[in-house]
Amino acid sequence: MRAKRIAVARGDAEPDLVIAGGQVFSVFTREWLDVDVAVVDGVIAGLGAYEGGERVDARGQYVVPGFLDAHVHIESSKLTPAEFARAVVPHGTTAVVTDPHEIANVLGREGVEWMLEASENLPLDVFVMAPSCVPASHFESPMSALEPADMEAILRHPRALGVAEMMNFPGVIAATPDVVARLELSDHADGHAPGVMGAELDAYIAAGIRSDHEATTFDEALEKRRRGMWVLLREASNARNLRDLLPLVGQYGPEHCAFCTDDREPDFLFRDGHIDQMCRVAVEEGIAPEAALLMATLHPARCHGLMDRGAVAPGLRADLVLLDELETFRPARVFKDGGLVAAEGRAEPFERAPIPEWVRSTMRAAPVGPDAFAVEAAGRVRVIETIPGQLITHAREEEPEVRDGRVVAVPERDLAKIAVIERHHATGRVGLGLVRGFGLRTGGFASTVAHDAHNLVVVGVTDDDMAACAARLQEIGGGIVVARDGAVRGELALPVAGLLSEEPVEEVVAGLEALQDLLREQGVSDSAPFMTLSFLALSVIPSLKITDRGLVDVDRFELVPLAVERS
Amino acid sequence: MRAKRIAVARGDAEPDLVIAGGQVFSVFTREWLDVDVAVVDGVIAGLGAYEGGERVDARGQYVVPGFLDAHVHIESSKLTPAEFARAVVPHGTTAVVTDPHEIANVLGREGVEWMLEASENLPLDVFVMAPSCVPASHFESPMSALEPADMEAILRHPRALGVAEMMNFPGVIAATPDVVARLELSDHADGHAPGVMGAELDAYIAAGIRSDHEATTFDEALEKRRRGMWVLLREASNARNLRDLLPLVGQYGPEHCAFCTDDREPDFLFRDGHIDQMCRVAVEEGIAPEAALLMATLHPARCHGLMDRGAVAPGLRADLVLLDELETFRPARVFKDGGLVAAEGRAEPFERAPIPEWVRSTMRAAPVGPDAFAVEAAGRVRVIETIPGQLITHAREEEPEVRDGRVVAVPERDLAKIAVIERHHATGRVGLGLVRGFGLRTGGFASTVAHDAHNLVVVGVTDDDMAACAARLQEIGGGIVVARDGAVRGELALPVAGLLSEEPVEEVVAGLEALQDLLREQGVSDSAPFMTLSFLALSVIPSLKITDRGLVDVDRFELVPLAVERS
Repeated sequence: MRAKRIAVARGDAEPDLVIAGGQVFSVFTREWLDVDVAVVDGVIAGLGAYEGGERVDARGQYVVPGFLDAHVHIESSKLTPAEFARAVVPHGTTAVVTDPHEIANVLGREGVEWMLEASENLPLDVFVMAPSCVPASHFESPMSALEPADMEAILRHPRALGVAEMMNFPGVIAATPDVVARLELSDHADGHAPGVMGAELDAYIAAGIRSDHEATTFDEALEKRRRGMWVLLREASNARNLRDLLPLVGQYGPEHCAFCTDDREPDFLFRDGHIDQMCRVAVEEGIAPEAALLMATLHPARCHGLMDRGAVAPGLRADLVLLDELETFRPARVFKDGGLVAAEGRAEPFERAPIPEWVRSTMRAAPVGPDAFAVEAAGRVRVIETIPGQLITHAREEEPEVRDGRVVAVPERDLAKIAVIERHHATGRVGLGLVRGFGLRTGGFASTVAHDAHNLVVVGVTDDDMAACAARLQEIGGGIVVARDGAVRGELALPVAGLLSEEPVEEVVAGLEALQDLLREQGVSDSAPFMTLSFLALSVIPSLKITDRGLVDVDRFELVPLAVERS
Repeated sequence: MRAKRIAVARGDAEPDLVIAGGQVFSVFTREWLDVDVAVVDGVIAGLGAYEGGERVDARGQYVVPGFLDAHVHIESSKLTPAEFARAVVPHGTTAVVTDPHEIANVLGREGVEWMLEASENLPLDVFVMAPSCVPASHFESPMSALEPADMEAILRHPRALGVAEMMNFPGVIAATPDVVARLELSDHADGHAPGVMGAELDAYIAAGIRSDHEATTFDEALEKRRRGMWVLLREASNARNLRDLLPLVGQYGPEHCAFCTDDREPDFLFRDGHIDQMCRVAVEEGIAPEAALLMATLHPARCHGLMDRGAVAPGLRADLVLLDELETFRPARVFKDGGLVAAEGRAEPFERAPIPEWVRSTMRAAPVGPDAFAVEAAGRVRVIETIPGQLITHAREEEPEVRDGRVVAVPERDLAKIAVIERHHATGRVGLGLVRGFGLRTGGFASTVAHDAHNLVVVGVTDDDMAACAARLQEIGGGIVVARDGAVRGELALPVAGLLSEEPVEEVVAGLEALQDLLREQGVSDSAPFMTLSFLALSVIPSLKITDRGLVDVDRFELVPLAVERS
């Protein structure tokens, strides 16, 4: 292999492929070079002038390295790895570093192993980080906890790179032995430290964590970068931090910064794109295209120690994107390991092995009727208030409306009921609360995508609608549903672990958008209501969240009752 | 350890040391931060304000990471590793990446293992690359060849990082199986490709080589950088490429560039310094001090995948340098792993184990009398012409002066005789030639430091002086000597492998300078004549060199006779 590549480079053997006539980006000097790119055995042999091989005419085009996503949960796309690849590869992405902690919550280590298996031989290299926080906290109820021994087993996989985002930042800062032991499993550990600054940030970094994707302000990102963290600028469906953080790049340059998407709904991926969309936004905000490209290519690769990619250079993989221009960054053609895998925004489906039954049968909720959602009256109550485009919530307190001795939803005040139903062990455990921010006027909606334990989360105006949603999700093996007048109006089945569809991306997008349309009819104003809903159960992001065990005050890191005690 | 560091960072445990009041350099933003640095267990815990611990007052000073040398042959200092450390640590160097191929030529794998042993527990971290080219070419005669199995054994050492500079660039470009096999021993391989450009450079890089320290021009360095090589800017005793290459940094920034010294005589290290001297020159040439510091700290660390150093940041080793100002870069104090190891340019000697006898008995040359240097007359002859401050030579041809049927030196034309005597196996093999450029008017001088095979190289005006030099070097176990009127006038014994002195750096410098003074009396104008001499035997640097096997035309890569054939 190496000998052949060398022979091609020096001009004594024929390349498999020559991308000729384009302007080739050097990530090392930020220049555009007027050279051909010769490829053999899936690897770049040289940059120069070459005879023979298949010729790709790139005249008038820009040749750049394939894009990398430095931190993503593939499961948030609601797509299998193969369909995720079909969604992002046409946008120029040729590698992702994923934390499969969603499926780990539902199916444990075996779930992660299935994700690895399901991402073999795709035109997208899927690297994994070993999930470090399953459960995300002791307030959550996954199928089972992922122990350090499970992480070790995952880390032995050739595509495993290190310890996934250490979300238990209070545990890190307190140097909890279990947390420290997990970090010691690898030299490479991703971080997750929203709002952590000053001495606590130093403590978090001193523990051995070298990246963070949770900065939401310039000052926070700057402080993290000063201290040696890779700043992963995030643009998720409901955590759109990119524009707020780009001034860091404008002022200090793109070094030590990389792009990531964390959690993106399939409609966002399908309609707006992936890392290409982040390049587009960066250039809109005044960043040089060359600087944007560094954050999309070399920097995510280096952040994760991937030395075989991230540049168009001899000896690196031939993961190449041809762009018509440097504003939209829409790839005209995408090459993975030297093969054309997408053109004009489209990739052919990849044939995949059938999904085993054990991955498809994960709904084990106890049956719940409308009575399960009854909330006894008890004076002032806590209310979760969502913030559009953010993962964090406000914690409010107010006087509820009570009917027949029970607290009820008040659509006029945008006050709905919310419940989380344990679904892995049929315990019948239900956490109850109130939520504001969706704009729901009638009916209800529910999801078995409910970070991170992925129990069943349901919001509704009436207990009947909530019960109808829950019952239907049990029947279809998980997914998302919308109900009104006590009956389900629409659904998108996500039978794979209750998280992923088996359908092509186009159908998943259509299904999701149809449900979002139904919700809009029912008054919902949130632009990604299912994403917002799914994060209301995540007990490690401030301020007030809900799990099957009840309301969680994340700032105080404790369970709190719905009723506000008099102090 | 980690738990304690975290506790110190968050302010709940006492640091061992606090460097307070200085301006602390962030390599990640190129800013100076007004913070204290807290250290515990040899590692940086945090940057902020800390109580307790030993206090170091750094007010008015700059706190920067310890310097790293990205590529050095320690043996060129003629010092043992401990004395090398005592020479460079006061200049702020706290880690070096060394290729021990000098001692490998003399003592094989065991010699490398002794270097590793002799560099344990120094206030300088000595990382090694496994020598890839022993012998440097088949024209050279080391004690024995270093085979891939030897390299593998070396690579298992915890301080081994990868494959050392692959000097056999013709072999790489030709994809010679033995060369490719050596490169495949590690993902990390250093390069050495003087003047290699275009398709041949691509071939060299495609083989998997990711650094080069041989660029001598802006264009060569730029082409190498564009294609993804780390450009290691070199400032050796007689390869002073720094000023020529700094425009690359000025024009394209310091990314993908790092400093290295390759080969420095002890007087250069002692009088002018080490990496600090390169920072000084860079700033003199108009480079920002912050950019210079990146090339002295973060970049050499990253070039070699050393993720635990190169920055002042939580969790990294407390290798710190305090500077009074950013022009001379002379360190006021140097801390290694949190301990003060040098102040005001001085370090105390470190106690070392005695050097074993087998490392000290390496002179095995057959006895040679004056007749061994006789050259029969034969028409026009080849002449090696040295170039001040360069490793390369010119290949000249001219009519020799003949007396009694033998070619003789002609001081008036600056023409001396040169010989290389095999010294590892007493074969009696002697290579003979003529050299111009030293300015030698009378007598002779010799060295057992003779890259890379380190046979005995001697230059002289008379055969008697050459014989006197050779005989004396055999007696003292190797070293450098100067003779006149058939008698040795001065000597510096280098009994350790015939390469290193056992004496302190001050005495080695004094000894070397005394010999250089003697040579100046004898007409020599070259400012580093022993360094120049030692490279005349290196058969992989153009154009004309000499080994015990005879003259080597490096451009044609073949042995050539002294006499020019009529063509």
